[in-house]
Amino acid sequence: MYEGAVQDLIDELGRLPGIGPKSAQRIAFHVLEADAEDMMRLADAIRTVKDKVKHCSICFNVSEQETCSICRDERRDRAQICVVEESKDVMAIERTRTFRGRYHVLGGSINPIAGIGPDQLHIRELLTRLQNAEIEEVILATDPNLEGEATATYLARMLGSTGLKVTRLASGLPVGGDLEYADEVTLGRAFEGRRNVAG
Amino acid sequence: MYEGAVQDLIDELGRLPGIGPKSAQRIAFHVLEADAEDMMRLADAIRTVKDKVKHCSICFNVSEQETCSICRDERRDRAQICVVEESKDVMAIERTRTFRGRYHVLGGSINPIAGIGPDQLHIRELLTRLQNAEIEEVILATDPNLEGEATATYLARMLGSTGLKVTRLASGLPVGGDLEYADEVTLGRAFEGRRNVAG
Repeated sequence: MYEGAVQDLIDELGRLPGIGPKSAQRIAFHVLEADAEDMMRLADAIRTVKDKVKHCSICFNVSEQETCSICRDERRDRAQICVVEESKDVMAIERTRTFRGRYHVLGGSINPIAGIGPDQLHIRELLTRLQNAEIEEVILATDPNLEGEATATYLARMLGSTGLKVTRLASGLPVGGDLEYADEVTLGRAFEGRRNVAG
Repeated sequence: MYEGAVQDLIDELGRLPGIGPKSAQRIAFHVLEADAEDMMRLADAIRTVKDKVKHCSICFNVSEQETCSICRDERRDRAQICVVEESKDVMAIERTRTFRGRYHVLGGSINPIAGIGPDQLHIRELLTRLQNAEIEEVILATDPNLEGEATATYLARMLGSTGLKVTRLASGLPVGGDLEYADEVTLGRAFEGRRNVAG
């Protein structure tokens, strides 16, 4: 409907998650009318994220450096590793201020329908990390949905023979929901109530 | 919460209309994980809109050229001018395929609370256009809300002495809707505007 550049922008915006055609149009017109400097900052922010942000070489959390700020932080407890699906989950847990250990981001969950098996996740790297004698506990904090539970069960079985304490976040998280959307109190409770699932 | 570049992007996205903090975070992580080429295309689309898209010098619709595609189209009826608030309204009317005249985009509506009076809108330019002898009818298609009605009333009074035909879009029941769910004002307008259908 629109001329070239405006329609191009509407098309690109419409491909973003949660942006429908009406929202894409509204945002495109906002871009058109807004301060040029603000919009160039937005365009640059997109470029910068793609250019500069990588994954931490230890835990696979997002990071602008070789290792993320949590892995670099000497005050974090080296005895605990919390296994999550995504970097978003790290931030959700950090907001609860309940956990002082380190993380391991799997990069997703086991989902046979989508063709994602254990080999597509950072499980091998987790096993390598767990060979470090400092580590005492692995907390399985995958999402409380079908794929997250399957992933936790898989990891619990695999880690059963290691002699490590392997725990799972307590129920209290609404089943079927996404970890990142849980409120801080619920997520904090879930941390406190984590149970032994292997051994 | 996040490191530099990711947080910068979340902040910039959160300033867009209709994008809350959760959506901004979800989109930022999508940018992070998505194909780099796709994301560079999005960044470029934003830049291109700011660099290339201007307003038509005749009707103030969005345009990449000096005049917009509608004003350049020789097949459009020069006798009718449809006055709207925004370029988005031009597209909404174009989708109906009902109107074959030209447009005039005011750039908003009269809103004393927001400090927008007739001088902040492209009303002077409209009056200049209307001096052209080709024009026979001015259709006031501002929004059917308080500000849009005030703007239409202002224009109707101003154009009363020109001898031009000045019309306003009909108010009434939305097609496909239920009469019982219509608000009182709309239903009242539908009554006032009732038309003879027999004989």
